[in-house]
Amino acid sequence: TAMALILLNHLGKDHKDYIKQQVHVKNPYLDTMEEDILYHFSLSTKTHNLPEMFGDIKFVCVGGSANRMKAFAHFIHQDLNIPGNPDDIRDICEGTDRYSMYKVGPVLSISHGMGVPSISIMLHELIKLLHHARCQDVVLFRLGTSGGVGLNPGTVVITDKAVDYSFCPQFEQVVLGKVITRSTELDEEVASELLQYASELQSFPTVIGKTMCTHDFYEGQGRLDGALCSFSHEEKLEYLRKAYEAGVRNIEMESTVFAAMCRVCGLKAAVVCVTLLNRFEGDQITSSHEVLVEYQQRPQILVAYFIKKRLGLIP
Amino acid sequence: TAMALILLNHLGKDHKDYIKQQVHVKNPYLDTMEEDILYHFSLSTKTHNLPEMFGDIKFVCVGGSANRMKAFAHFIHQDLNIPGNPDDIRDICEGTDRYSMYKVGPVLSISHGMGVPSISIMLHELIKLLHHARCQDVVLFRLGTSGGVGLNPGTVVITDKAVDYSFCPQFEQVVLGKVITRSTELDEEVASELLQYASELQSFPTVIGKTMCTHDFYEGQGRLDGALCSFSHEEKLEYLRKAYEAGVRNIEMESTVFAAMCRVCGLKAAVVCVTLLNRFEGDQITSSHEVLVEYQQRPQILVAYFIKKRLGLIP
Repeated sequence: TAMALILLNHLGKDHKDYIKQQVHVKNPYLDTMEEDILYHFSLSTKTHNLPEMFGDIKFVCVGGSANRMKAFAHFIHQDLNIPGNPDDIRDICEGTDRYSMYKVGPVLSISHGMGVPSISIMLHELIKLLHHARCQDVVLFRLGTSGGVGLNPGTVVITDKAVDYSFCPQFEQVVLGKVITRSTELDEEVASELLQYASELQSFPTVIGKTMCTHDFYEGQGRLDGALCSFSHEEKLEYLRKAYEAGVRNIEMESTVFAAMCRVCGLKAAVVCVTLLNRFEGDQITSSHEVLVEYQQRPQILVAYFIKKRLGLIP
Repeated sequence: TAMALILLNHLGKDHKDYIKQQVHVKNPYLDTMEEDILYHFSLSTKTHNLPEMFGDIKFVCVGGSANRMKAFAHFIHQDLNIPGNPDDIRDICEGTDRYSMYKVGPVLSISHGMGVPSISIMLHELIKLLHHARCQDVVLFRLGTSGGVGLNPGTVVITDKAVDYSFCPQFEQVVLGKVITRSTELDEEVASELLQYASELQSFPTVIGKTMCTHDFYEGQGRLDGALCSFSHEEKLEYLRKAYEAGVRNIEMESTVFAAMCRVCGLKAAVVCVTLLNRFEGDQITSSHEVLVEYQQRPQILVAYFIKKRLGLIP
């Protein structure tokens, strides 16, 4: 009967593991490594007890700016009524200036810099961190800023599909000199749940739509105000009109690789960006600092509401 | 005769402008704009006197890490014997956390984050800044870290040509949904001058070679330690061997767009990176913090020597 109990326990454990959503690293070499140095986080499996530090993480929120992700950590600390002094929230990656990372209860807030390569380094190391820490049922959010396509500034866009410059829901990844293509579809349930919560909140205009991800801010997004510009105002508007007709509602610089990597690794993920301007109206971001700060809080408020719902803090 | 003098003065001015190396923005719209907001620098032509702030800049040094570029500003302050307290060197972009910028005499030190999109935003706004400030004869340097290909860690690589994942000296830029190709050749004179100075210094091993620029740190560079890895150790080594045979001596993530944009805008530019490891030997960066800090000073020492030579501070 002792053996039977052991077997039952093992079955129980396996069963539990099966129904819980694990993080799938897709690398057979990883578990054979004696040490894994997460270089750009300044963390390592040898020098840090990752399961103890991060095992209870259920929500990971990422965004470009380090200041913004620090502000989000303070906001969620207050919003979730986490005990302790918010001034004690320290940057877990203080050993490096590549990224900043803050932990507040079950929420991790991380900055990722600008552009696909920068967020991709962070995601590789984050996914390994979640794997090493044996986290389960994690939902990832990118909280970003973006240019709006036919939307008033301040509108929040929940991404349906992340698309590339030709409006296709795909991400091209070079692997050893060969280009492979990955799908960029995001979790439908999380997106529709977010849209539902936005209508409950009634605090700011929110839409669901495609998000175009480009590899630069100027020529790739059709801006007329870069150091280089080889097209006319009319050609710019034509490209934006085509994007709008294809369902694109905003433009940013990280969503395709974020969607692709989360999908491959079995992580539920959503992209929630506020628009800082309507690109049909102009290229420069001319709103005041105060207005821009308020806009940037909108994705935070929506995702915080989602987290509170999931934690049962809101009926 | 008054008219003749005016004409002569104008000719003189034009002649001087002609022989001086100007910064060429390639955008007909730029000079028609009433205000140009350099959003990611938190600077603007209306709120800042850019010619007064930056008109005397002759050398611009850029690198990924904000801390490293601050350290470089302090180092060059001491090395050029600039009067004043180095603790007074303040971040000119303190209104934003996207980039950091420090000015020390004729030297500007700026961080650019990681990856092509991040440095490309910085370069657009830097080139506009140099144009608005009417700077002349500017030389740009990227001081970076990299993975070495067949070189001992700590070796400094002066880039001959920046190449893409297929070892071609080109950069693919998307403009309004269409891919165009730009050349990534760097200034030969500056590179050979740097190599000459490295041999005068005799402080660390320095080579000249091709630098491969990838869009991520893991799969694109053939690392076996990312969250995703679909190739074998042998396939990795084969790719690195091919790169070595094509003349590649190091791998980083910004050189192609840096070379391409500087070339289009008539800016003399060089890429000087130290290698933190030999990629034939491994993937993880395992050297101690102290060793890595010393390695990262090597490109700074070489470029500082170049600047002192150009300023006539070294015979």
